[in-house]
Amino acid sequence: MKHQKVEDADETAARKPRDGLFIRVYFGDGRHIGPGMIDLLETIRTEKSILSAARKMGMSYRRAWLLVDEIAGNFREPVVLTHPGRRGHGTDLTPFGERLIALYRDIERRSAEANGPAVAELRAALAPLPAPTTTASDG
Amino acid sequence: MKHQKVEDADETAARKPRDGLFIRVYFGDGRHIGPGMIDLLETIRTEKSILSAARKMGMSYRRAWLLVDEIAGNFREPVVLTHPGRRGHGTDLTPFGERLIALYRDIERRSAEANGPAVAELRAALAPLPAPTTTASDG
Repeated sequence: MKHQKVEDADETAARKPRDGLFIRVYFGDGRHIGPGMIDLLETIRTEKSILSAARKMGMSYRRAWLLVDEIAGNFREPVVLTHPGRRGHGTDLTPFGERLIALYRDIERRSAEANGPAVAELRAALAPLPAPTTTASDG
Repeated sequence: MKHQKVEDADETAARKPRDGLFIRVYFGDGRHIGPGMIDLLETIRTEKSILSAARKMGMSYRRAWLLVDEIAGNFREPVVLTHPGRRGHGTDLTPFGERLIALYRDIERRSAEANGPAVAELRAALAPLPAPTTTASDG
């Protein structure tokens, strides 16, 4: 199947309102990794199956497959390995797939740790919900 | 005008491929701030006009206005002040608007500083462009 960009993996993966820093790593050429991809890899690790992972995450098999294809296409080393003999549980992460998860989760953790006070100051400045209607106009 | 959610401010604001960390700060209730909003506030600061800022950023006045309205609606304090007497250059940031920019840019800077080696390792693992077609399938 041709490599194909899956646009909004990070949005689809979010089923409850996000809290805290949302981070994508962009590589300056259109490629990136983000939380939707990493969540999928972690679910594949648990489920040992792209199909089961897709079901668990509420996405189509086709979508999950395209996402895995997009991640894999970005890097020199494979991120998953398929064992055709093991029906239904035939997919494992490669060591590089594991490393990708670890690097991304470290980036999230270190960013959160470095910015606790700034995020707290932003939260403290939030208007009470429901957000009041405000006005602004240009002169 | 009623407060209205502007969906993809961060995507629209990006006109060349992003490079490095892309960060949004989510507040757990659907509200967030991101680079598209902050870019717009910075442009309003320079242009002293929402209309001029919108033109400079290649977005419609309506879109810029809705974005400013969304940012303003999220926080207790106003982010812009309009002076009706100064035609065409009648909008300034408030001190809180300035603080919002500073906090967000600090979060970006500190996250980048904390993650240099991890991002470098990801870059080093990238496949050469054009990305090769890879295959993956589920057993």
